[in-house]
Amino acid sequence: MDDDRLKRLERRVRALEDEAEVRRIVAAYGPLVDAGDADGTAALWETDGVYDVDELVMRGQDEVRAMVRSRPHRAFIEGGCAHVVGPAHVRLHGDEAVAVCHSLMVVHRDGGFVVRRATANLWHLRRGADGWRVAARTSRVLDGRQEAPDLLRRGVRGEA
Amino acid sequence: MDDDRLKRLERRVRALEDEAEVRRIVAAYGPLVDAGDADGTAALWETDGVYDVDELVMRGQDEVRAMVRSRPHRAFIEGGCAHVVGPAHVRLHGDEAVAVCHSLMVVHRDGGFVVRRATANLWHLRRGADGWRVAARTSRVLDGRQEAPDLLRRGVRGEA
Amino acid sequence: MDDDRLKRLERRVRALEDEAEVRRIVAAYGPLVDAGDADGTAALWETDGVYDVDELVMRGQDEVRAMVRSRPHRAFIEGGCAHVVGPAHVRLHGDEAVAVCHSLMVVHRDGGFVVRRATANLWHLRRGADGWRVAARTSRVLDGRQEAPDLLRRGVRGEA
Repeated sequence: MDDDRLKRLERRVRALEDEAEVRRIVAAYGPLVDAGDADGTAALWETDGVYDVDELVMRGQDEVRAMVRSRPHRAFIEGGCAHVVGPAHVRLHGDEAVAVCHSLMVVHRDGGFVVRRATANLWHLRRGADGWRVAARTSRVLDGRQEAPDLLRRGVRGEA
Repeated sequence: MDDDRLKRLERRVRALEDEAEVRRIVAAYGPLVDAGDADGTAALWETDGVYDVDELVMRGQDEVRAMVRSRPHRAFIEGGCAHVVGPAHVRLHGDEAVAVCHSLMVVHRDGGFVVRRATANLWHLRRGADGWRVAARTSRVLDGRQEAPDLLRRGVRGEA
Repeated sequence: MDDDRLKRLERRVRALEDEAEVRRIVAAYGPLVDAGDADGTAALWETDGVYDVDELVMRGQDEVRAMVRSRPHRAFIEGGCAHVVGPAHVRLHGDEAVAVCHSLMVVHRDGGFVVRRATANLWHLRRGADGWRVAARTSRVLDGRQEAPDLLRRGVRGEA
């Protein structure tokens, strides 16, 4: 019986650790991308993970890396830029997880700061040989297009 | 002795799970309300839970549901809108919890985004037959009115 | 063997509790400072903890307390002000922890709200006789100065 109790506890603790790790990945994106850390940002994704933003679909770590190294992204950092992501709502399903959150892209402009974009984000994460990674992140700007509220609805329900 | 250690561990793990669930509820509000999911939003509250905002007091799930379905709220979604809530500071007291956080309501306007409202939020949650639910959420805009800082102070102290 | 399993579980649960406590401290700053709670804000730091902001270095709880009680800070509260901090990326190293996050200072102005500052924050926390406290928090505005992205990069790597 004690062995059963231990096993149950081990499972519950592992689920809590998994959720903490998923949060860590989501919370790492903003600091990494605003630091211009292309390798660190790309490493959040699986080798062939997808990052699908309104105007751009990045397939694989190399394309994420290229975005962080791109001239437009570097210009944002040099001008002053904050990608504020989360807090995330997380649902675990064994070795997979769905997270959903808002993000705000805040940029420095004319001595002040403006919100350039408010975005809905749906994350699909998976546990693999190297731990948890992003299989797919889909982001849609909350400017009235129906896709953005749709992402939020699916995310809270844990549908990737 | 091992039985005592197991019991203590079970209690601690349950407290961590409770806190994670409280966070999940707080983190669900923004995505649900921006998705226009009236039933999902209402279900965060107890049947007779209260959502007390500056200009409106909603008593019970039906009134929360009606707010999400209201024409003004639908107009916000159609125009583009992000209710960014948290992160929350959480204190557990057995089957009750107090959470406190800021929220930002960001709306799409003239091709950009503006912060329409920055708000102080005090949440009182309870564990019932169906798990954790919101018994009361009180929100006051941070425009200088004394009630808003008062909510923040009470919240951090864990006073519902 | 069961004793080993119990010990391992106890260590893992303690790490989860430590991370929750670190999050609680980071999440407490905004509500406390916007409530004008000078003692509560100061108590987040170690007695001789450091809070290093662009224009001001506060050494010790007394200087943090003085900042919260200062006329400029009180004027922000009276006008309407939200220090939205986090969510934080947290790394534990035994009795020390490194957290990194963005913060937004949103102020009420002309009937609306504006983002006055978007900031990179690197936190170094330590467990002492009275539990977890802030040993040092360094904050740099994200206006293009190189120090701010540098803080973010170090923070995600867990370098205090």
